[in-house]
Amino acid sequence: MNFIKIGVLVTISFCVTTANAFDYLQALPDKVPVPKENPLSSAKIELGKKLFFDPRLSRDGTLSCNSCHNIFAGGEDGRSFSIGYQGKITRRSAPSLWNVGFKTVLYWDGRSKNLEAQTKDHILNKSITGFKVEKNYIDRIQKIPGYQNEFNSAFGKSSKISLTLVAKAIASFERTLTTPDSRFDRFIKGEKSLLSKQEKQGMEEFRLQGCIACHFGVNFSGPAPGPALKMGDGFYEIFPNYRGSKFDELYNLTQDKGIYDLTKNPRDMFMWRVPSLRNIAITSPYFHNGSANSLVEAIEVMGKTQYNFDLTAQQIKDIAAFLKTLTGIRPTITSPLLPDTPEKSIYK
Amino acid sequence: MNFIKIGVLVTISFCVTTANAFDYLQALPDKVPVPKENPLSSAKIELGKKLFFDPRLSRDGTLSCNSCHNIFAGGEDGRSFSIGYQGKITRRSAPSLWNVGFKTVLYWDGRSKNLEAQTKDHILNKSITGFKVEKNYIDRIQKIPGYQNEFNSAFGKSSKISLTLVAKAIASFERTLTTPDSRFDRFIKGEKSLLSKQEKQGMEEFRLQGCIACHFGVNFSGPAPGPALKMGDGFYEIFPNYRGSKFDELYNLTQDKGIYDLTKNPRDMFMWRVPSLRNIAITSPYFHNGSANSLVEAIEVMGKTQYNFDLTAQQIKDIAAFLKTLTGIRPTITSPLLPDTPEKSIYK
Repeated sequence: MNFIKIGVLVTISFCVTTANAFDYLQALPDKVPVPKENPLSSAKIELGKKLFFDPRLSRDGTLSCNSCHNIFAGGEDGRSFSIGYQGKITRRSAPSLWNVGFKTVLYWDGRSKNLEAQTKDHILNKSITGFKVEKNYIDRIQKIPGYQNEFNSAFGKSSKISLTLVAKAIASFERTLTTPDSRFDRFIKGEKSLLSKQEKQGMEEFRLQGCIACHFGVNFSGPAPGPALKMGDGFYEIFPNYRGSKFDELYNLTQDKGIYDLTKNPRDMFMWRVPSLRNIAITSPYFHNGSANSLVEAIEVMGKTQYNFDLTAQQIKDIAAFLKTLTGIRPTITSPLLPDTPEKSIYK
Repeated sequence: MNFIKIGVLVTISFCVTTANAFDYLQALPDKVPVPKENPLSSAKIELGKKLFFDPRLSRDGTLSCNSCHNIFAGGEDGRSFSIGYQGKITRRSAPSLWNVGFKTVLYWDGRSKNLEAQTKDHILNKSITGFKVEKNYIDRIQKIPGYQNEFNSAFGKSSKISLTLVAKAIASFERTLTTPDSRFDRFIKGEKSLLSKQEKQGMEEFRLQGCIACHFGVNFSGPAPGPALKMGDGFYEIFPNYRGSKFDELYNLTQDKGIYDLTKNPRDMFMWRVPSLRNIAITSPYFHNGSANSLVEAIEVMGKTQYNFDLTAQQIKDIAAFLKTLTGIRPTITSPLLPDTPEKSIYK
């Protein structure tokens, strides 16, 4: 994996030498980055929407992508851990899908370099969809004859349905899930009277207390792809950085060792992909284990574990007020019309 | 219960003395019947849509109404039996919600006289939502603060959230779920060249073989509310009427005894509410136990069990072709924007 890891000392200096927060905070761009291998098209987006919402594409027909990543709500399920196939409890909290197209790497440990790879990996996760083998998953799609035409429209006639094409379609749909025009975005774009005094103070504290060292860029999760970060690069941070506080136990922060659990490399101990803060106010609970229910809890914990700061109640409230300005406008989505279930059982 | 039950001999004579099928088959009306106690309003419909799609209103947050009554598809889940709370298998096959507003009584045994009563009953079914007590269900809604405003908009300010209001809102939304303009409807309304020769032959067989004796009226499920049937009256039929054929065992037709299981009254043995045939081609599998996967199977079984007729392969194919003309145009539904999950766990 191609990592960018910024140590805390480095990030503090990065932060305090910054003239002001605006230099490192940006409005959500109008356009989402799109890999050249998978250009957007309306047919692909439409197919992706159908696949995204179709519960028949889980083994027992009870779960769709939207079950855990509910885009009628905050793009996730409001749980600490999602409930997957046959009641299996997942290992980490489902992240919001809103603005996922602006993320660099996917998963809490950043193990997928793009949405296409993440989608493929996720679909063949037995605990989530009940499928483990590509053939069984593709067989299920093929049992719903209407999908063939949809794939033909999206990828050219006589397209061979494959996990790669499924992932391209779902990733294309997910790239449309953006929430522009948060009060923060409008403020950044010039509506300077839109934020209250407290919200502006919160933004200042967000910089002064070092939150911005990791949570900067268009998605408040580190550098956007571009000069600093290529597509597929990740941006990671140790959490908890200062261990030994009461919060380790209260929020169970040291059980899951992050990237280390994947690589077993000691330098990856407690290393995590920096999560986005966009729409954070509507995506409780927080952290990889969903252990913090409120923003004020999460901010207090972060101050202590990342910088060994004891933030004051006022600082915490101000930062929380600022974070609430990051809730964007969710687009209206028209319901997909799923291809008909055929006159034979698709579940046997 | 106020029953209308028509014996087979009566229905045969009803049928064969009919001049032609059109007298007893009707296009879907433009307007759905609405009880005066619950007039439609856009605020109620919008609230009902949110409640309908909100999985947080099941005990473990995994199931919404749409999970089993999928209106992105045929209005049901394509399963013989639905999977409810914590994997519980339900007892009867989920009926389609499309055009449910035209139904007289609800459930396979017709035990609910209107959508409002059915919704209340269904929500407090522990196997389905995980809730059994109104208070616990209402507590859950109240844990999502945004709902209070929605209830105020729909029912007047400072509305006290109750199961009765929930049911009124969901029923209002469900009454909007109509599928007009099937090829059959357009044919009935005058586009006489729209049906093929086989489809018209199928309609004729549908009458001659007696299917129409029960499956008539706007919803192909007996008389519509009006002179013949008041709102809340049901229209029932014995199934299987002729027992002892091979189909009893093949399709497990005598295990579930229908209304008898509710009343223990011998005259209710194998008595069922007549199901609608609208959109039947997209709602496989068939029967109360979802035991028939294809229309041709279901038609063959019905001919034998209801009239002791051995329909020919041609008759069956023609009737199936006719039934496929009953698939209407499903409306586009815009996604609901669910009230935000608060910054505290709603599941504890």
